[in-house]
Amino acid sequence: MLTQIIGYGAGITTAIAILPQVTKSWKTRSTKDISLLWTLIYLFSMLLWVTYGILLKEIPMIITLSIETILYVILLGLKIKHG
Amino acid sequence: MLTQIIGYGAGITTAIAILPQVTKSWKTRSTKDISLLWTLIYLFSMLLWVTYGILLKEIPMIITLSIETILYVILLGLKIKHG
Repeated sequence: MLTQIIGYGAGITTAIAILPQVTKSWKTRSTKDISLLWTLIYLFSMLLWVTYGILLKEIPMIITLSIETILYVILLGLKIKHG
Repeated sequence: MLTQIIGYGAGITTAIAILPQVTKSWKTRSTKDISLLWTLIYLFSMLLWVTYGILLKEIPMIITLSIETILYVILLGLKIKHG
């Protein structure tokens, strides 16, 4: 029970974490300090995580990871736009 | 079997992803575009993930997450140092 709560807490917190980065990059229109390679590798890992979630049929995992993936796609878009 | 391989691949790729960001911030000594809040929330989520791994007694999970945590601590240090 406690293990599950910590697991869900970890998943949700990881997904939320990138939100302040996306809003910061959106507002400042400056992303030069952000590594393009990081966003690309991280996004690739997200695709693997979503696939893993689908194979396990873990709906909460699929939902939180999908939200996280969307946020990283937005960040990647901002990085490509602003350099 | 395939599910496990994808799971481990996802975990390792997530841990590796932050490496180019750490090396970029280390070399350029510029971190102003990086959100402090992101690094703090992400690190907090990493502590939850490591706790989750310990509760599940999943050694590969604990090892990869610990490496990832160390890399984020270094990034946080660089962010605090360079602003």
